[in-house]
Parts: sequence; structure tokens; C-alpha cells
Amino acid sequence: MENILFDPISKYMTLTEEEKETILALEIFKSFKKGSIILRKGQISDDSYFMLKGCIRCYYEIDGEEKTTAFYTENEGLNPQCYITGKPSEYYVSCVEDSIIIVNNRRMEKIMFEKFPRFEKLCLKMAEELNAKIQYDFDEFKTSSPEQRYLSLLKNRPDLLQRVPQYQMASYLGITPQSLSRLRRRILRHAN
Amino acid sequence: MENILFDPISKYMTLTEEEKETILALEIFKSFKKGSIILRKGQISDDSYFMLKGCIRCYYEIDGEEKTTAFYTENEGLNPQCYITGKPSEYYVSCVEDSIIIVNNRRMEKIMFEKFPRFEKLCLKMAEELNAKIQYDFDEFKTSSPEQRYLSLLKNRPDLLQRVPQYQMASYLGITPQSLSRLRRRILRHAN
Repeated sequence: MENILFDPISKYMTLTEEEKETILALEIFKSFKKGSIILRKGQISDDSYFMLKGCIRCYYEIDGEEKTTAFYTENEGLNPQCYITGKPSEYYVSCVEDSIIIVNNRRMEKIMFEKFPRFEKLCLKMAEELNAKIQYDFDEFKTSSPEQRYLSLLKNRPDLLQRVPQYQMASYLGITPQSLSRLRRRILRHAN
Repeated sequence: MENILFDPISKYMTLTEEEKETILALEIFKSFKKGSIILRKGQISDDSYFMLKGCIRCYYEIDGEEKTTAFYTENEGLNPQCYITGKPSEYYVSCVEDSIIIVNNRRMEKIMFEKFPRFEKLCLKMAEELNAKIQYDFDEFKTSSPEQRYLSLLKNRPDLLQRVPQYQMASYLGITPQSLSRLRRRILRHAN
């Protein structure tokens, strides 16, 4: 368990034993069953999430329908808006699979930053990288068709297409489940 | 000039005279004429931008056409992907208006962080807020129609609709200039 926690961090810095022990003492590992809702619309939470195992999904409820906006899997972090702004969440976050997640909050961050100031540098680096990732995804969404988005997933995130239910994937791509089925058949025909 | 630089920072922290002088000595104010391109596709730059005055636009060139993905105006910051990843930029950034911009780079950041470590906290806060903003804009784009996007701008960013050429605004909303004209006429009719 410790390895899957410290491996992503080792990309940025080598932790001392004391730092590792402090992190472990915060008890930030949480396990969630598939289907669990970890953040609800209207909830004010200062939890942030870093995925160690599994898959979570962000979705809005609009006119009684779920509109999926994001998936996060291993080694991806989510800082929900309510964590940053302190306002009620406008969306839900639920587990697509059984998941193990680092759940961090402002109190824990404060403890870490006071004890180990260099963690601030780590968080800045991670926030900037998250920034680049969201910006890239947003630009790609704006500059491509649903078919191009699907082909990009097929190339870059084939695992996600296997792990996520079709109706959630269709919503994420901005099309109906029927259109997604047609799109997949068309792509399969071209591939053969 | 000093006020428009330090006012946005005063939201987060009160600067000492020494801190202000160090910032001013870095000569980070830059003036650009309308139409100037400040970042080109393929360029590797570690500049980041914070808007003091004016308006800049990010756009891709796709099949010979410009696809506008973002506008930034007063008190908004842009950390281009190349600044974060060190890879060549995939898009252009140009000035929609004459602009005054804080242009910061990694070398300057290093000087500031070494001399005033608390600036790291400031940058982390700003990176997180930028994060929330991009996430919010992305979610709004995914969960709304072009008409809803236009109405949202009319409510939240009416200045932008006045400042930006129609063809750029249409591209930003994900529609043709003709559709934007029809949409505006329809909204005006309903308003009267």
C-alpha cells in the first residue's frame, strides 16, 4: 500500500522517512465501493482526491439527467471547486469502480506545510500540471468532433473505454448512447 | 502603474516595500499592441501571463482556420502549456486589444521564491483558483448549448461580447458567425 502512495510523489521528490511517517499518520487512504457517492451536489467539502486505484466520475444533474464531465483514474488528482472556493458543490463525484483514494483536506495540508515547507513546492508543481491537463482536455474538446474525441480516447486512454459504462461514456463525449453505438460500429467497419 | 500590479496581489497578501521593489526590479511589465502575437505554435516558452489591461486570445490553426479557445482580460492569468510541460506550444496567443501584461518566467520565479518563500504560497493559491476557473468553464461548456453559453456571457461577461470580434466570439462559442448572428437576433426579439 505504501508504494502506491509514495511512487507518484517520487516523480517530484525523494521523501525522508520522517516525511513518510507523517503522511501515513494522517490516515489519508480511503477505500470506497463501486457506486459510492463521495461528493454530493450542495455539499461544502474541503476534501481533495488523488486516485491510487479505481475510477471516479464527476457528473451534473440537469433536467433529471446525469451529464458526465470527467473521469479520474490511477495517479490523477481532482481538486473539486468547493475545495478551492468554499462554495457548495455543483456536481456529484461517484465511484465507477471499487477505489482507493488519498483524501486530503486543508487541515492536513496545513500540518504538512508547517512541518515540511517543501511540500508547498510539490503541491504547486502538481497544481500546475493539473492545470495543463484540464486546459489540454478543454481545448481538445472544443476543437474536435465527438468522433475525433472517441478516436483520441481509443489511442490515449483505451482502458477508460473498457472500464466505463457506455451511457456514461456517451454523455462524456457529448452524444447520445445511440450515436455512440453507431460511431463505434462505423469505426470498427473502417478498421476491418 | 504600480497600483494595477499590486492591487490584484493585495487580495492574497500585503507586500512589504522590499518585496514590491524586488518585483519592480524584475521589469515584468510588458506592453503589446493590438494584433501582436505573444506566443506562436511550435514555440517553447517558459513565460506565463497575468493581464493588467487589455485582452488576449488563445487559438489553434486547424485545417487553415482559426479555432478560438479562450480569452483573458484584466486580472486573469494564463499559464500556457509549454510553460508547464516544456513542450512546444500547440496554439497561438495574440492581443485582441492593446494590452499591458505581467510576463513572468521560471528564472524570475526562482529569484522570487528564494528571496521570499511566501510567494510560493501565493502562487499555489493562484494556481488553484485558475484550476477552479478552467474546470468551471469546461463543465459549463460541456453541459450547455451555444445559446446557453451566449446567455451566460451576456450575464457574466457582457464586456467581452463588446470587446471581441464576432468571428472570434462565434468560434469560441463553437458555432459559425452566421449562427451567432441568428442567435443574437433571436435573443434580441425575445428581450423586446
